[in-house]
Amino acid sequence: MPLTSDPHRPTAPAQPDAGRLYSLVETLRQRAPLIHCLSNTVVENFVANVLLALGAAPAMVVDAGEAAEFAPVADALSINLGTLTEPQAVAMRAAVQAANAAGRPWVLDPVAVGHLSLRTRFAHELLAVAPAIIRGNASEIIALAGAAGGGRCVESTARSEAALPAAIALARARGAVVALTGETDYVTDGERVAGFANGDPVMQRVTGVGCALSATCAAFVGICSDRWLAACAAVAYTGVCGQLAARAHDVTPSAQAGPDAVSRPARPGSFMPSYLDWLAGLGQDDFLRLLRPADA
Amino acid sequence: MPLTSDPHRPTAPAQPDAGRLYSLVETLRQRAPLIHCLSNTVVENFVANVLLALGAAPAMVVDAGEAAEFAPVADALSINLGTLTEPQAVAMRAAVQAANAAGRPWVLDPVAVGHLSLRTRFAHELLAVAPAIIRGNASEIIALAGAAGGGRCVESTARSEAALPAAIALARARGAVVALTGETDYVTDGERVAGFANGDPVMQRVTGVGCALSATCAAFVGICSDRWLAACAAVAYTGVCGQLAARAHDVTPSAQAGPDAVSRPARPGSFMPSYLDWLAGLGQDDFLRLLRPADA
Amino acid sequence: MPLTSDPHRPTAPAQPDAGRLYSLVETLRQRAPLIHCLSNTVVENFVANVLLALGAAPAMVVDAGEAAEFAPVADALSINLGTLTEPQAVAMRAAVQAANAAGRPWVLDPVAVGHLSLRTRFAHELLAVAPAIIRGNASEIIALAGAAGGGRCVESTARSEAALPAAIALARARGAVVALTGETDYVTDGERVAGFANGDPVMQRVTGVGCALSATCAAFVGICSDRWLAACAAVAYTGVCGQLAARAHDVTPSAQAGPDAVSRPARPGSFMPSYLDWLAGLGQDDFLRLLRPADA
Repeated sequence: MPLTSDPHRPTAPAQPDAGRLYSLVETLRQRAPLIHCLSNTVVENFVANVLLALGAAPAMVVDAGEAAEFAPVADALSINLGTLTEPQAVAMRAAVQAANAAGRPWVLDPVAVGHLSLRTRFAHELLAVAPAIIRGNASEIIALAGAAGGGRCVESTARSEAALPAAIALARARGAVVALTGETDYVTDGERVAGFANGDPVMQRVTGVGCALSATCAAFVGICSDRWLAACAAVAYTGVCGQLAARAHDVTPSAQAGPDAVSRPARPGSFMPSYLDWLAGLGQDDFLRLLRPADA
Repeated sequence: MPLTSDPHRPTAPAQPDAGRLYSLVETLRQRAPLIHCLSNTVVENFVANVLLALGAAPAMVVDAGEAAEFAPVADALSINLGTLTEPQAVAMRAAVQAANAAGRPWVLDPVAVGHLSLRTRFAHELLAVAPAIIRGNASEIIALAGAAGGGRCVESTARSEAALPAAIALARARGAVVALTGETDYVTDGERVAGFANGDPVMQRVTGVGCALSATCAAFVGICSDRWLAACAAVAYTGVCGQLAARAHDVTPSAQAGPDAVSRPARPGSFMPSYLDWLAGLGQDDFLRLLRPADA
Repeated sequence: MPLTSDPHRPTAPAQPDAGRLYSLVETLRQRAPLIHCLSNTVVENFVANVLLALGAAPAMVVDAGEAAEFAPVADALSINLGTLTEPQAVAMRAAVQAANAAGRPWVLDPVAVGHLSLRTRFAHELLAVAPAIIRGNASEIIALAGAAGGGRCVESTARSEAALPAAIALARARGAVVALTGETDYVTDGERVAGFANGDPVMQRVTGVGCALSATCAAFVGICSDRWLAACAAVAYTGVCGQLAARAHDVTPSAQAGPDAVSRPARPGSFMPSYLDWLAGLGQDDFLRLLRPADA
């Protein structure tokens, strides 16, 4: 499908090669990129453990002065607005400026943007300084795109399919890759759109899975200059590992777990250790066997 | 037992119907109340995961301006003084004021009050602005009641039975429901007193179980206007789930675990994932079978 | 080997009696020392859970005024620079001053010192006010010793063996016990040097294991006035528990785990609950059987 300069030009469905994605996982494990995280305090322990499990080296350097010193040393920077405060915004500004000056890519996770004034104002400020990847759910992506393109309202229960046009518009307007996550995940650079249908509903019942995916995008873009491919690898690997962890054997409430996967109760507690184990150890065969592309 | 207007009037032991308590659990799962938490940084990840496991939707919005915007949107607010700082007190004040103005109930967890000046001063300030539920251990409840009623000293090793008169006095003085937790848990609105004898000592060996119970009180009061019943449901459900999780099968130090439950070593690490699984999946039959009322 | 006043005097390899170390574990469980932690926000939940599993009572009191009130009440203080900010430095200064005035020992964990200016400056300020124990990896110990002794550069990939002379110099210059951790762990007071060869590489794949070891040093020095022995107990017990937890049975990625321990994938998720269980329950027989001294 030909791409044109028309703002209404069509996008091309494009599914990256699964073997190429897994090779990025191996590269990440070998190179152990140093990821600077300015995260929210609720999830930063989990984010650090996800990055360590992947084989990356997380560093939460939060003082504004130190953040500016550290961002150029790191391979990539991850910014998460979940528990934003004014002092934290100062440190984030300093880190982004230093990362940009040093040519280091950075990822924006605009948690709950659209609903709350400090983070919404700050997210739009950050959009103007060139995030490499933006990772959000349908509501967040619609909120960011709406402000860029003309004020669409926020639907907190929106499905990711419904937000795909907003994701494409946001990617084009900002020159960023957008990773839009939900029941189906999409990754677009405004031209190409890849879809993934892995994961499990229990991932919504554990805090920080989405935040950790944003940091995972930073880890992959720290070792791969093709930002779209990096975000695809982060989304695909997270989805397959999450799906495997959700179906892990758990003996605890076994009497309640029937053979039917739909009626089985969620086991968010068992999910967490299993998820980290799979992130650390998933092999190529399982990844290739389980990865499910979705139509874009 | 008749209730009178006498300040020394007797209270009535009152045990809520177990089936009614479990129906609140089901309501919570269906309605997924949005719970605004201004928690302490040590436990906020665990608190968020407990709320998600229950079926609630936690949100830690911590900036003072955003907290005032968000409190009216949430179904209930949970305030925890564990790692109080002056800037956090500003945000808590703003959130409580906004919640009260919007008619949203809020819960106070006065962690370690009585020993330390900033939190003790601030807890008394907050007592004056109408918490719906106060959840604390014996020392904390005695400290709060003592200041309200005449200066009793704090006994950090007090048993919950010894603090029950203080809990009743505090509930009457402040018009709040008091959930007093320990080996036996009590819930009183100053008139009715319910007692529960579930739980397990290992719950003292995991940080945040009490803090998460306070947030759980907020989740139940977010879906049930009878504050005493809401606090009873939170305490009862937490106790039964904790008891089940403490007795979960764990293969790790098995050679040391004898058949005698008393001498068996605590397994706080295994407890955590199992606890979240039970919170997410405990069925009615197990709840009804295991719930143990205690004499008040 | 005779000790002299010569600054180049030799040190004496000295291995503490394993039974004596385990008796300190039992003392800690019986006395439940109160440990004041000014930790980094990434790991404070895990640090609290490690202390609780050991049998200690953690308290994260972070406001500067309250920290000064609380430090004299606690049995020991643990200071961790991982997410240092200026306001946190104010609280740490207040806590250290109050601990010193009350004769309470305190432990310094100089996370990532040498690379970043705020924490490096502050770590040197703290070195001058008498930490009882300094716990760090090779890079951190070399950075601290270098500034004390003449400017050696920081090697972030240094092995602990290479940093042992720096650890000994730092211990002598500051009158502190230095716990230098890595593949082999060393504990020195500048005269005696003990070495330990337990642990497992997966401990590098979970955030906060090192930080929690520093807090564990505080727990042991809170019940044992011989600081070198206290640090030896902390290092030895952590290493044996970590080694057992790393080899715990995990069913999740079992198809990938071969019989060869070297090629087996890391399971950082399963490690965490198992580690806490072993900290809570490791018996004397297993400790004595598994403890491995290393040549200093």
